[in-house]
Amino acid sequence: MTYCVALRLQDGMVFAGDTRTNAGIDHISTFKKLYTFGKDGERSIMLLTSGNLATSQAVVKMLENGILQGTEPNLLDVPTLFDAAQLVGDLVSKVARTTQTRAYTQEGFGSNFLLGGQIKGQQTELYHIYSEGNCINATEDTPYLQIGEAKYGKPILDRSLNYRSSLEDAVRAVLVSFDSTIRSNLSVGFPIDLIVYRNDTYTMPAGIRVTENEPYMNNIRSQWSAGLKAILQQFEEPPADYFR
Amino acid sequence: MTYCVALRLQDGMVFAGDTRTNAGIDHISTFKKLYTFGKDGERSIMLLTSGNLATSQAVVKMLENGILQGTEPNLLDVPTLFDAAQLVGDLVSKVARTTQTRAYTQEGFGSNFLLGGQIKGQQTELYHIYSEGNCINATEDTPYLQIGEAKYGKPILDRSLNYRSSLEDAVRAVLVSFDSTIRSNLSVGFPIDLIVYRNDTYTMPAGIRVTENEPYMNNIRSQWSAGLKAILQQFEEPPADYFR
Repeated sequence: MTYCVALRLQDGMVFAGDTRTNAGIDHISTFKKLYTFGKDGERSIMLLTSGNLATSQAVVKMLENGILQGTEPNLLDVPTLFDAAQLVGDLVSKVARTTQTRAYTQEGFGSNFLLGGQIKGQQTELYHIYSEGNCINATEDTPYLQIGEAKYGKPILDRSLNYRSSLEDAVRAVLVSFDSTIRSNLSVGFPIDLIVYRNDTYTMPAGIRVTENEPYMNNIRSQWSAGLKAILQQFEEPPADYFR
Repeated sequence: MTYCVALRLQDGMVFAGDTRTNAGIDHISTFKKLYTFGKDGERSIMLLTSGNLATSQAVVKMLENGILQGTEPNLLDVPTLFDAAQLVGDLVSKVARTTQTRAYTQEGFGSNFLLGGQIKGQQTELYHIYSEGNCINATEDTPYLQIGEAKYGKPILDRSLNYRSSLEDAVRAVLVSFDSTIRSNLSVGFPIDLIVYRNDTYTMPAGIRVTENEPYMNNIRSQWSAGLKAILQQFEEPPADYFR
């Protein structure tokens, strides 16, 4: 399993993905699921992957080779981010269907992707691309998209973020969202890859790999846990009719 | 969908279930999912249901008729709660399989149940009964069990409760768990049926139906929401290397 989340906010974007993959609980590995593609001063594209690892890695490899070999279209020459999302959609549907046909099975070999970034002169955009090759994009009403094991970490995002949230607040909420997911699901694990992109910079941020013992993450985890317990303690006693 | 949770703690038990059922998003109704069976001074049994409504209602009706008609075994004469769980398991697997056979389909018509309570002279017990008729029981290490849309409301239970938690703290955490679920999933809705059973009382608690506008629930919802935002605000700024 996997947990990835991306946000498109007023001031920029945040991308975060865990690094655990598993095929059964006794075959767990660490794989990067956050990839970047860019041309300094012209475009920055971030890609998060989930689902079948063979499929998602094949798609990423094809995207990378397309750039190296100058195949058209490729991520560095598509005119818009919608075209970039279409390109990823074409590749994933092709790869997944080929594997399915070879395997003589109805079972899917799908992957899901979050793709976002900015091309010079255009606004930032964020897409969720499905195995079937189609996609949806984030709007001001729904500024974040998730793939993988999304449910445990969704409530805190729903409660604390909106399009006008600062990038700093977004990073805090994203780390808490990962903490909740990692505590509740063994198949999502540290380290977390995280990239913050500020509007109109058109440079590829280096990003950070947040380990379990990274001091800021550690502070957040312990403050969050203590804070939640404190709120619960501050609630007044439930009224007597709750215990009738 | 449904969300039900039950806890078996040092001092007693808590049972809570929402009341929304849906067959597609345009067919939403309110149905009770929390049932009680008891003999004052001798036994108290609480039952929560999820899954296919026709199956779960058939099982409940058979349990009720069994008691009225004195069929053996029935919930008021089984010697242990494990036997009660086996009885529910026998009925649900029979009902689900019959429907499936009639429908000429592989698709399941299953329901899941949480059954718990106390029989005089015995300890409290709590079981999760699956469609297949088998069951697991809660232990001191894992004092709570969930059925239905469990993920959104799981993190707060994992963080805040253990076997030695008070029944008051358990009620607070359960209400927050429902609030998180209801905010994130349209198919889970108010009102919430809630029953608190104190060890060795052997009487059937009246319980309470918690509506959306019930004052205590309202306080908890707004205090929780404000409290979470306050914790996030109190986190120090993420370090500069998060924004490289």
